[in-house]
Amino acid sequence: MPLTREVLAVTHEGGRKRILLAAERPLTLYVDRQELVTLMTLGQEPELLALGYLLNQGLVRDAAEIESITVDWDVAAAAVRTREGIAQFAERVARRTVTTGCGQGTVFGDWLERVPPLPAVAAMADAAGATAAAAHAAAPPGSVPHDVLVELLQTMRGLPSVHRDAGSVHGTALWRAPRRSGEADDSDDNSGAAAKMLVHIEDVGRHNAVDTVAGWMAMHGVDGAGCWLYTTGRLTSEMVLKAAHLRIPVVVSRNGATAMGQQLAERLNLTLIGRANGQRYLCYAGAARLVGLPEAVTTTV
Amino acid sequence: MPLTREVLAVTHEGGRKRILLAAERPLTLYVDRQELVTLMTLGQEPELLALGYLLNQGLVRDAAEIESITVDWDVAAAAVRTREGIAQFAERVARRTVTTGCGQGTVFGDWLERVPPLPAVAAMADAAGATAAAAHAAAPPGSVPHDVLVELLQTMRGLPSVHRDAGSVHGTALWRAPRRSGEADDSDDNSGAAAKMLVHIEDVGRHNAVDTVAGWMAMHGVDGAGCWLYTTGRLTSEMVLKAAHLRIPVVVSRNGATAMGQQLAERLNLTLIGRANGQRYLCYAGAARLVGLPEAVTTTV
Repeated sequence: MPLTREVLAVTHEGGRKRILLAAERPLTLYVDRQELVTLMTLGQEPELLALGYLLNQGLVRDAAEIESITVDWDVAAAAVRTREGIAQFAERVARRTVTTGCGQGTVFGDWLERVPPLPAVAAMADAAGATAAAAHAAAPPGSVPHDVLVELLQTMRGLPSVHRDAGSVHGTALWRAPRRSGEADDSDDNSGAAAKMLVHIEDVGRHNAVDTVAGWMAMHGVDGAGCWLYTTGRLTSEMVLKAAHLRIPVVVSRNGATAMGQQLAERLNLTLIGRANGQRYLCYAGAARLVGLPEAVTTTV
Repeated sequence: MPLTREVLAVTHEGGRKRILLAAERPLTLYVDRQELVTLMTLGQEPELLALGYLLNQGLVRDAAEIESITVDWDVAAAAVRTREGIAQFAERVARRTVTTGCGQGTVFGDWLERVPPLPAVAAMADAAGATAAAAHAAAPPGSVPHDVLVELLQTMRGLPSVHRDAGSVHGTALWRAPRRSGEADDSDDNSGAAAKMLVHIEDVGRHNAVDTVAGWMAMHGVDGAGCWLYTTGRLTSEMVLKAAHLRIPVVVSRNGATAMGQQLAERLNLTLIGRANGQRYLCYAGAARLVGLPEAVTTTV
């Protein structure tokens, strides 16, 4: 399916201009032949979106509960077959609807109680004034070295994307966190182990993009604990809850955060970084994971 | 309720910075004591949000169906009482759930069939090369004069807002379209009647913001036909459908459009303008309404 479409727009000067617009198409999820929801999607990875949506909504607990997902764009449908059949599934949908309502872009409600905090962050041993390379080499597991983060931001910025061509989509990328010093096979690389991008998903909504990443993780058996999540979307409560649900301890956005997103990140021991672009960023929560900053951070926020 | 909260962030240099974050709070809608949905909202106009949500979801057809809406932030609840009681309402919820699913920020589904097109746009009589002032004075009813649009954009840009202070929210404003020449009491104003901002709403999600505007319109008995809608959010299919549902013929965004948003705008006879900032914009659909452009637009797109 094409992810962009060319249209002829009229400019403010009255001229004409060929531009690309991002595709947006409905995808109706049927679970065991029963209609569940219609998602508006770019259509990049519809099977993974369907899987990730079911996982993030708590309707499916494990990819193994799914027998097959078949997408047919001619009828804008993703047909999901579960192994257990409709009975238990319908019960979950009903319970979800009763306890949380059906939301306007929210996963909400009992998630606040349901998602357990990640392991607490101890302040990372970081020598103030150490060179970036030294700090990096000494970076303890679970830390976020400043220079690795800046590399990540540069990679994201340079990536070919629908957003670059057509705008109006959100991107989400899953990164493998840098391996700890000694663990990495980086003898010919003085800068130490870098973070590595595992998957990059774009979609009309930031939620679809992160849901698709969740589907990818489930299919590939990737544990969120060793990952960082990058998103172009805002760090609202739901985004933080979804990351915590996936056990991803570090979330980075080009965009900002809401107060509730920040509070939840603090409570759930996530490192929340926003306004991240080029060399600059702001850490809203979990700053104890940051190492190799020009000035050492001595107190957690 | 405060709309922002101050937090102490850590900068990329390791320093500290006091910043404001936009509030985000859950608001659970109860209709006749039955839980319907939890919306994550900034909290600016919760009663209007509740009303507009019900209207835009097609669960309420008219503000007169509502007896009262009472918001209690202590329990994060908006209690809606309908005049007709729960029976008919529950039926509507059930029908909606069956036909469209419960969405991830979408109103979709049968909306595509349910929302009728606006009256077709005839190409506006616009003298090519006329001065902006002359074009403006001669602007036919329903037209979008270039200079009025630019004024609107400048006003939106200069407006005090949560977005300016804290980012991470979307804004939507309803504008009364300029009155037609002769109709306006503008004898002391050579530039003719300007557009007038009626209401400006910000919220965590662009959908909540436009839903709140819908609630405001219902409360004030304002007909969308004489209005323009400004939004900072993307012009996706739903945004276009919501505008058409409100009978608003002109939608302007600082952001871009999706291909489906553009197609729907064309089909529903909406003028869709995006990437609007300062003096610049792109018209994706319904360009026949534009007048007073430096070069006359001779063909509709």
